[in-house]
Amino acid sequence: MTTTLYQRLGGAKGIAAIVDDVMTAHLNNPAVKARFENIEDMDHAKKMACDFFCAGTGGPETYTGKDMLTAHKGMNISEQEYLAVMDDTVAAMEKNGVNEDAKNDVIATLYSLKDQIIRV
Amino acid sequence: MTTTLYQRLGGAKGIAAIVDDVMTAHLNNPAVKARFENIEDMDHAKKMACDFFCAGTGGPETYTGKDMLTAHKGMNISEQEYLAVMDDTVAAMEKNGVNEDAKNDVIATLYSLKDQIIRV
Amino acid sequence: MTTTLYQRLGGAKGIAAIVDDVMTAHLNNPAVKARFENIEDMDHAKKMACDFFCAGTGGPETYTGKDMLTAHKGMNISEQEYLAVMDDTVAAMEKNGVNEDAKNDVIATLYSLKDQIIRV
Amino acid sequence: MTTTLYQRLGGAKGIAAIVDDVMTAHLNNPAVKARFENIEDMDHAKKMACDFFCAGTGGPETYTGKDMLTAHKGMNISEQEYLAVMDDTVAAMEKNGVNEDAKNDVIATLYSLKDQIIRV
Repeated sequence: MTTTLYQRLGGAKGIAAIVDDVMTAHLNNPAVKARFENIEDMDHAKKMACDFFCAGTGGPETYTGKDMLTAHKGMNISEQEYLAVMDDTVAAMEKNGVNEDAKNDVIATLYSLKDQIIRV
Repeated sequence: MTTTLYQRLGGAKGIAAIVDDVMTAHLNNPAVKARFENIEDMDHAKKMACDFFCAGTGGPETYTGKDMLTAHKGMNISEQEYLAVMDDTVAAMEKNGVNEDAKNDVIATLYSLKDQIIRV
Repeated sequence: MTTTLYQRLGGAKGIAAIVDDVMTAHLNNPAVKARFENIEDMDHAKKMACDFFCAGTGGPETYTGKDMLTAHKGMNISEQEYLAVMDDTVAAMEKNGVNEDAKNDVIATLYSLKDQIIRV
Repeated sequence: MTTTLYQRLGGAKGIAAIVDDVMTAHLNNPAVKARFENIEDMDHAKKMACDFFCAGTGGPETYTGKDMLTAHKGMNISEQEYLAVMDDTVAAMEKNGVNEDAKNDVIATLYSLKDQIIRV
């Protein structure tokens, strides 16, 4: 039986810890902090990020938020911002002990979403 | 008696024509079109831009919109976007026959507002 | 016996075909064409790219060029340029029939080199 | 008799002081330091910058360097880098007591050179 990426990331609990660290990092990253400081309901934003991550990696959770294109529409996100988010995510995975293979799968997945995020 | 920049830009009518051309250009400029396509009430946005421009150049109009910092808060505007707006504004002034001196005054004014616009 | 990434990319011949397509794409990509048009000896640049790629993916070739940090020193490469190179590389792999897994390994590898490339 | 911009910037001596401060600032500005750290002959770079500035503002000096387009060819300079140079220049003028009008003339001039600098 194959292990899902969800399991390799530590399931819902592991993913929640990663998302927490990512959001903290974003609030301190000059490339994106202006966006994230402006979020009114951070708990909701974190829940959406967790659900998206969980559902997209093979977990039983359901993501009820907007699709990626709609979620980023009109924000005119730059390559610099996109990579800042990638970097903070990779650092959070490393901090939480995610192994190399799982990390690379997440990197490739985030890369595959790029055109639904940048300048849409 | 000195001529105001407002007068040199053609007053409210001249400024409205410039703002019209600027907005059309933004909607066709890959660097910023995602932001401007997303504006729900374009007539209101144009009126705000006209009032801001008029009031700031010595006209009798009153600007009732947000100050620049508040208006751009959380948008995380990049240098590329800022210069795209500058370029479209300069092109619109040239199209509308604004002379070199008035054009340069607008450029310097837009430059002076930069830190209330980029990544705030 | 495990297959190397080198083999999965089609060995030296497969990698040379990818590098050829990447360079052609760069010369047509507005984000980086100014850099690549300026290369005086394109054959040498391609050979270096092939050797680097081959040696780094498990091939028998030797890379005799500069390390990545030295190679990019002083160029002040931006996130936009870095992602343009990534995009052209991914598109070239897809054009040359590289499978998903190998493609993702290359993406993760290019990502791991990012801090030796951007703004160094 | 009209005063030239050259005179309003303090002539060759005033301009040399500004260029000195600009170069020091560039070496400390994360957006461009990688480019300027890489300059082998900084004295020559400063002399070229002074001559360009002097000749372009109405001084008797001759600029023997490359035209702006040729000088920046292949560097793929970004909007972020261009504005960093503008900012450091404006700050150096302010530090050296250049008045508002002269400062704005320099800003407009640097803006007019933009398309010979960015991504050429």
